Amino acid sequence: MLATVLHAPGDIRCEEVAEPKILKPTDAIIKLSASCICGSDLWPFRGLQPLDGAMHMGHEYCGVVVEVGSAVKTVKPGQFVVGSFCLSDNTCPHCRFGFQSSCEQREFMLGAQAPYARVALADGTLVATDTMPDDDLIPSLLAVSDVLGTGWYAADAARVKPGSTVAVVGDGAVGLMGVLAAKQMGAERIIAMSRHKSRQNLALEYGATDIVSERGDAGVARIRELTGNVGADSVLECVGTNESMHQAINCARPGGSIGFVGVPHGVELNGEYLFFAQRNLLGGPAPVRRFLPHLMDLVLTRKINPGKVFDLTLPLADVAEGYRAMDERRAIKTLLRV
Amino acid sequence: MLATVLHAPGDIRCEEVAEPKILKPTDAIIKLSASCICGSDLWPFRGLQPLDGAMHMGHEYCGVVVEVGSAVKTVKPGQFVVGSFCLSDNTCPHCRFGFQSSCEQREFMLGAQAPYARVALADGTLVATDTMPDDDLIPSLLAVSDVLGTGWYAADAARVKPGSTVAVVGDGAVGLMGVLAAKQMGAERIIAMSRHKSRQNLALEYGATDIVSERGDAGVARIRELTGNVGADSVLECVGTNESMHQAINCARPGGSIGFVGVPHGVELNGEYLFFAQRNLLGGPAPVRRFLPHLMDLVLTRKINPGKVFDLTLPLADVAEGYRAMDERRAIKTLLRV
Repeated sequence: MLATVLHAPGDIRCEEVAEPKILKPTDAIIKLSASCICGSDLWPFRGLQPLDGAMHMGHEYCGVVVEVGSAVKTVKPGQFVVGSFCLSDNTCPHCRFGFQSSCEQREFMLGAQAPYARVALADGTLVATDTMPDDDLIPSLLAVSDVLGTGWYAADAARVKPGSTVAVVGDGAVGLMGVLAAKQMGAERIIAMSRHKSRQNLALEYGATDIVSERGDAGVARIRELTGNVGADSVLECVGTNESMHQAINCARPGGSIGFVGVPHGVELNGEYLFFAQRNLLGGPAPVRRFLPHLMDLVLTRKINPGKVFDLTLPLADVAEGYRAMDERRAIKTLLRV
Repeated sequence: MLATVLHAPGDIRCEEVAEPKILKPTDAIIKLSASCICGSDLWPFRGLQPLDGAMHMGHEYCGVVVEVGSAVKTVKPGQFVVGSFCLSDNTCPHCRFGFQSSCEQREFMLGAQAPYARVALADGTLVATDTMPDDDLIPSLLAVSDVLGTGWYAADAARVKPGSTVAVVGDGAVGLMGVLAAKQMGAERIIAMSRHKSRQNLALEYGATDIVSERGDAGVARIRELTGNVGADSVLECVGTNESMHQAINCARPGGSIGFVGVPHGVELNGEYLFFAQRNLLGGPAPVRRFLPHLMDLVLTRKINPGKVFDLTLPLADVAEGYRAMDERRAIKTLLRV
């Protein structure tokens, strides 16, 4: 089959690879309904993350089960499923505490920018729908797999509650999903930090009440001004740089919470600074599995439309253009027809 | 009056100083019932914290109000009061959120190793008892002012709940108070990390169920062993070194919480490490004011006896010996008769 392989920074290709096979009795093979490119795929694409040989790209997926291993009990061929980018057994202590992304058997999904993919730990990872979803819901169901699940976790980790004042650092797809999540959780005020008109518009559509285009210290000052010099109750950090992380911490009030989901690159936090900042911090790869049933239900009942975050759709053969468009910020997020 | 002044690292003296006066209408002057030495006083005593000239030491206090400024409304001369080491107005937004230690007007108490002390922001800071407490309760009421309040905050920040498994890093007075707090909050299992027999005994008396004498990686391994390879739900970090902070984080399970109250000295946290650790972090100077009424009530009704943490009592004139005894770990905490 033709699938996506990153050979070197900037060198992404759609090329012939072997079809996935059941390797363990707990595996499933799915035929993807669609795939997409994640902001985190840009780190190795940009050469900002070490690459250990050619890498099969793609970790967001939904589709139809075509084959299951002998030990798989909860999903079967023909079912439509969504899974998390973190593969988990959903039975270990960490999973039972709702932190499936720290599962004792955790693996990260690979090779999902392809027509078919192998999903390990299928019973723990996949959630099936009752019936085959309408085609127009596929982008939104695909979004649940990572980008929405991650934005949702950012809001959950930042303890967004009804009435909260929320700031979102980062106007990428995850940040926009964070806005959507905060709105669903009942936030009263949602301040999106963005300097791009199209992203500002989508943020407003998803529930942002204010837009702040300043960054760094100026952005922090603006948030303080907007919150009566108090700071936000909850801040969603959806970038992962040292500057954005400090910006997020400084935007929160003492006792407020930062949910950080941008994979940190070069972030260093001084202990004394954190101590006197007196903010709650929780981050990590999102335990999407915890939220999957709820988020799939919100999509299937058409209460949310996270799929709007895809503003570019390309055939898998043009995946390289999809990466470039996101790298150059011409696209928020690229959907791939497989 | 004779009071405690630190002139240089190691050079602590009880010497003649001016009596405190009302400087602002919101001040009160109290006659201390007793004073004490804090673990954090040892940082400048050891030369590990810059000293900007001679420093009037002492920030833990309880006693009788002798004078109040013209604006003070809630306490009056003759009342017995306890206050936090953080002075706060208790009306600003941060105070109302329960983070009085980040009060917009925050000051830190100074000069309480003395017979008399000035307390700024008296209305916001001081809590009076209904009647004059029995003499034998003075050590415990004094403990509420900082050491118990700080241990309590560590447990609160680490989200100790009924049934929790808790690890306490640090067997100083704050760590021992953290054990007491965790017990009061209903923790099922409390693992005290200590290698000193007398401190182990007090930890057990305060409610520890297990003692771990290993430190660093070996300590982490022992905690994992004791918790079925899961990690603790809550970890109280009561030291403040880089090693103890990492030890605390590594002792918690993913999704678990670290309350860090040891003032960090040389602590640096890498963003990627924190991300994949996926632990909740909250620290800072304890908002003791939030807990004061409850903790004073627990002492006055003799439900807790935090005063047992004082294992050395000296007259104020011998304060230098009190510092040395704590510095050399011959004493857990020194009470000063003033």
